[in-house]
Amino acid sequence: MSDLTNLSVTEAVDAFAKGEATAEAMVRASLARIDAHDGKVNSVIRLDRDAAIEAAAAQDKARAAGAKPGPLSGVPMMNKDMYYRAGKVSTCGSKIRKDFRPTVTATVLQKLDAAGAIDMGTLNMAEFAQNPTGHNGHFGDCHNPWDLAYCTGGSSSGSGAGVAARFFAAALGSDTGGSIRLPATICGVTGIKGTMTRVSRAGVMPLSFSMDNVGPLTRTARDAARIMTVISGKDPLDPTSAPEEVPDYEAALTGDIRGLSIAVPKEWFFDGADDVVVKGFEAALGVLKARGAKVDYVSCPSLHAVGTYVTVVSRVEAAAIHAQWMREHPGDYAIHLSGRLYAGYAIPGHYYVETLSRRGPLLRQFCKEAFAGHDIVATPTLRTRVPTLAETDIDASPDNWARHMVVSANTRPFNYLGIPTVSVPCGFDDRGLPMGLQLSARPFAEGRALQVADAYQRDTDWHARVPAL
Amino acid sequence: MSDLTNLSVTEAVDAFAKGEATAEAMVRASLARIDAHDGKVNSVIRLDRDAAIEAAAAQDKARAAGAKPGPLSGVPMMNKDMYYRAGKVSTCGSKIRKDFRPTVTATVLQKLDAAGAIDMGTLNMAEFAQNPTGHNGHFGDCHNPWDLAYCTGGSSSGSGAGVAARFFAAALGSDTGGSIRLPATICGVTGIKGTMTRVSRAGVMPLSFSMDNVGPLTRTARDAARIMTVISGKDPLDPTSAPEEVPDYEAALTGDIRGLSIAVPKEWFFDGADDVVVKGFEAALGVLKARGAKVDYVSCPSLHAVGTYVTVVSRVEAAAIHAQWMREHPGDYAIHLSGRLYAGYAIPGHYYVETLSRRGPLLRQFCKEAFAGHDIVATPTLRTRVPTLAETDIDASPDNWARHMVVSANTRPFNYLGIPTVSVPCGFDDRGLPMGLQLSARPFAEGRALQVADAYQRDTDWHARVPAL
Repeated sequence: MSDLTNLSVTEAVDAFAKGEATAEAMVRASLARIDAHDGKVNSVIRLDRDAAIEAAAAQDKARAAGAKPGPLSGVPMMNKDMYYRAGKVSTCGSKIRKDFRPTVTATVLQKLDAAGAIDMGTLNMAEFAQNPTGHNGHFGDCHNPWDLAYCTGGSSSGSGAGVAARFFAAALGSDTGGSIRLPATICGVTGIKGTMTRVSRAGVMPLSFSMDNVGPLTRTARDAARIMTVISGKDPLDPTSAPEEVPDYEAALTGDIRGLSIAVPKEWFFDGADDVVVKGFEAALGVLKARGAKVDYVSCPSLHAVGTYVTVVSRVEAAAIHAQWMREHPGDYAIHLSGRLYAGYAIPGHYYVETLSRRGPLLRQFCKEAFAGHDIVATPTLRTRVPTLAETDIDASPDNWARHMVVSANTRPFNYLGIPTVSVPCGFDDRGLPMGLQLSARPFAEGRALQVADAYQRDTDWHARVPAL
Repeated sequence: MSDLTNLSVTEAVDAFAKGEATAEAMVRASLARIDAHDGKVNSVIRLDRDAAIEAAAAQDKARAAGAKPGPLSGVPMMNKDMYYRAGKVSTCGSKIRKDFRPTVTATVLQKLDAAGAIDMGTLNMAEFAQNPTGHNGHFGDCHNPWDLAYCTGGSSSGSGAGVAARFFAAALGSDTGGSIRLPATICGVTGIKGTMTRVSRAGVMPLSFSMDNVGPLTRTARDAARIMTVISGKDPLDPTSAPEEVPDYEAALTGDIRGLSIAVPKEWFFDGADDVVVKGFEAALGVLKARGAKVDYVSCPSLHAVGTYVTVVSRVEAAAIHAQWMREHPGDYAIHLSGRLYAGYAIPGHYYVETLSRRGPLLRQFCKEAFAGHDIVATPTLRTRVPTLAETDIDASPDNWARHMVVSANTRPFNYLGIPTVSVPCGFDDRGLPMGLQLSARPFAEGRALQVADAYQRDTDWHARVPAL
């Protein structure tokens, strides 16, 4: 095989299963690429080099002895540094947890291990997963592989940048207001946030338990489907995890989207959008129409409230989770983060409860507005062009705060609503930075969003482009 | 039969089943007693006189035609005016809802109907179930049948007073901080708050959804067991209702408590207690010891936090539930209630979330402190003598506020902890007002608390005394 780092997840598993590539070769190729380029990108927090090679070698040995490969066998992965593995440091991108060694292993890591993925270490992220740009003063900012001056999107900065840079085939991120979909769109890869509670959060750093989601960043929708099938489902260790049956998401990827109906909301998502982004989005709709999908523009007045409510809920829950540390070590937080947290302490409890109590009615209203007669809601993932690291650096100037709220404007509503949402690369803006198409489906209809994403990727090659590093 | 109003629930069902008393005769006896005495007591908000007689006559007809009696057949009941019945006004004890006609019927009412209980109407209560004394300026205060100058306890004032006055055999109350157990102890009847989420709250006025409980006030523990068996269990209309199997609680009432171990906490429950109450409590423990139970005094440091946390959670949730009305009709609330509600608006959201997030750990801690090696936690239900209506009237003087907090001091902790708790009458104080013994058990061990309560009532007759009216 020519360059093993160009293999997608499903291609890597096939190559391993057929004996065309060993797990060790794939891991060594990943490590070599990280060694060559991560000095510029800064996606890695901890590289478990020797352990990864050993684990890969063990898989090759088992394979040679006739063991049946798992759904992720031999796939080099790294994950956002907030998935706990017993005995290993999990920094959560922070100074406060820089030496934190959990005693438990996240259920999702156990599932990935059991499926055969090779865990090579942990990835850079926004401090405690709390900014949408990926800035991190403690571990250094992560840089966009398409242009190092630009942000990666956050909070799963290392996951987006590393998959885009071909350092590994897939990475877990987490998404509370867009933290999977933003680095996916900004780095030009695919990301999925499933239905709220679809994936266990046991052993995962909490940010806002009413809106936190676990999910993968990958190159293709097919890879995302593969990993979601592995990690989703009820977990006795997470009482909030959904009991709904998990389908084989890959089985839905037929390529056939004839007659599927796509709704584009008239409200919210296009306020202040950049022209190049709107054009890229419309071109992407054109691809789906050419495949036989219908597109309608619909009115969703529910969305104005929804966009604000995310902030209320996440600020209050984050304030509660960080209360003890904020009392004892307020100076250990970055300014941009303590600023967010302080705001949370001023929100009255009744407003938090009212905001949560409107979630059910607003979800019903949105589903009626958007999904009555439609299968998918499509929007740009990011309504503006990708900003630079400098122009979104709040620690340098508080004037950059407003831009942060714009960055996550199109992703946030789906966290409050809790519905499944996929972002796929859909082109490049006039400065050569990626753009993304955001596809949402009804609760627990992840398969539908993945089906459309996969169909789109059959006719486009944005996801297959490799940044020059 | 001599006086049908003296029959307990299980006695009434037996009399009906054996043909010794008709349902109509029992209902007419109840109505006559209400007509004779409720002018003084003021327990009733709405008497459905004709409908009750009709329903009773229909049961008698069915019985004559050979229909098998249900577990509550022929039993005259009335319920706190916050259980919705489609088309019937449910005032919730308030001016704001004085004309509110729900379109749904509470699951618990449907279960009582199906079991054969005769619903004669609705009962007085604290406005929106929010005070522990039973004061109500909109419908008039409810008076203690043992001495009309004294309060009934609240918020289920009419439920406690009416069962004590032999107006009906049983009544639903609701308990968020003691609102079943307080009128039970103060009026000299039996009351049970099951494990949090044990009984469906669908179609029931919410006060604080993290701590609201539905349960009956009755004369005997056996009656409480009968009704809890009927109303408990998972309800698809209440997603918070517990899936745990419901045992036949009456089967646990063996009278045999030899070897059972009772823990008495050293903290919290006796701070500022009246001597006569402590003596009454110790005498009650003596009865249980004579039946073979062991009593230990244990240290429960968890309790100091718990007592305060109830207030934080209930104030915030009540503030959210009442936000719209408080904005639009603040003057329609009694002063004592708007005072409570206003305080709720000042509690920050993060403190509410922190308070709820300590619930699991504190429940584990309390269970370890109190239930390791012990089956039951026993305390006085009310740590002072029963106060008069005048000395607990906050609308007359804000100085009476502090006394309210003392009234619910011993009941509140079990709402935060969510564990099942029964109150049984255990004597009379030096002014002739009732006292109560509070028995708590592990989560979902309602049967254990009822077993001890029933054993106690086999050797005492406090619950059988009738106030002179």
